[in-house]
Amino acid sequence: MTAIRILGLDPGLRRTGWGVIEIEGARLTHVAHGVIAPKDSLPFAERLLALFVGISEIVALHNPHEAAVEETFMNNNAASALKLGHARAMALVVPARAGLPVAEYAATVVKKSVVGTGAADKTQVAFMIARLLPKAGPATADAADALAVAIAHAHARKARSFGAAA
Amino acid sequence: MTAIRILGLDPGLRRTGWGVIEIEGARLTHVAHGVIAPKDSLPFAERLLALFVGISEIVALHNPHEAAVEETFMNNNAASALKLGHARAMALVVPARAGLPVAEYAATVVKKSVVGTGAADKTQVAFMIARLLPKAGPATADAADALAVAIAHAHARKARSFGAAA
Repeated sequence: MTAIRILGLDPGLRRTGWGVIEIEGARLTHVAHGVIAPKDSLPFAERLLALFVGISEIVALHNPHEAAVEETFMNNNAASALKLGHARAMALVVPARAGLPVAEYAATVVKKSVVGTGAADKTQVAFMIARLLPKAGPATADAADALAVAIAHAHARKARSFGAAA
Repeated sequence: MTAIRILGLDPGLRRTGWGVIEIEGARLTHVAHGVIAPKDSLPFAERLLALFVGISEIVALHNPHEAAVEETFMNNNAASALKLGHARAMALVVPARAGLPVAEYAATVVKKSVVGTGAADKTQVAFMIARLLPKAGPATADAADALAVAIAHAHARKARSFGAAA
């Protein structure tokens, strides 16, 4: 059985969380995680470029096979949604450019997959990340969310391959 | 006096218009224009990648010195704003990645600069593009809007440099 390496991304203009895990059968292993935080003082296009370059470096360094991106919580404010869209595009286009399949998961799906309920709060997600990936050590909320989306993808792809085999 | 080459972009997920002009003193010259239209049938990340690659090719081919991106009309629908943000990010990050300064202009500013009124409609914009850039030939609405944002940037940078000289 080959290990599959998954990059999870929790996109945001101020902070984009990232986490890399490996899945081999039912076994999950933590590889690395962190946060990319472009300086607010940069012009908007440069902030996006900082996300683009940061995610590109992570892809080059950790060589994931697949990527999973969180459909970050969206309120009804069109102006914030527009901004978030710009940041989220970096999380989608960088892995696509590297030839990885890119899956997207709603925040509730991620929470349900990791904690068991779509209504879980950040503390519960962080607690389960520490349980599921004991070697991860302390992660900020953004990095924990990125590891959570990677785990959700690991679960979803396993469910899909069972489905295909049945 | 050196000619400055400007890339104008009117971003959209289905159609991103682009136009390249050259400005030398008060003289505007048309260089090229067109539309990038990723297939709707592609996965979302691949559609963004098609915009990324398309804009990258235009930058490589036409070697602009500066880029100008339209702040496309935004309604109050957060879901469409989020989608538009993804597409618009490609128009910002590709020129930034090539080291170009990237300016952003509201649609009303572009119209005012090209037609004289921020309330101008698409027909008036197309008419003025044909007047200002007679060698452009027929352009679709998206390409005409992209040429218009390039012209608006040409006007704005000239106004700025006059300001600096005063």
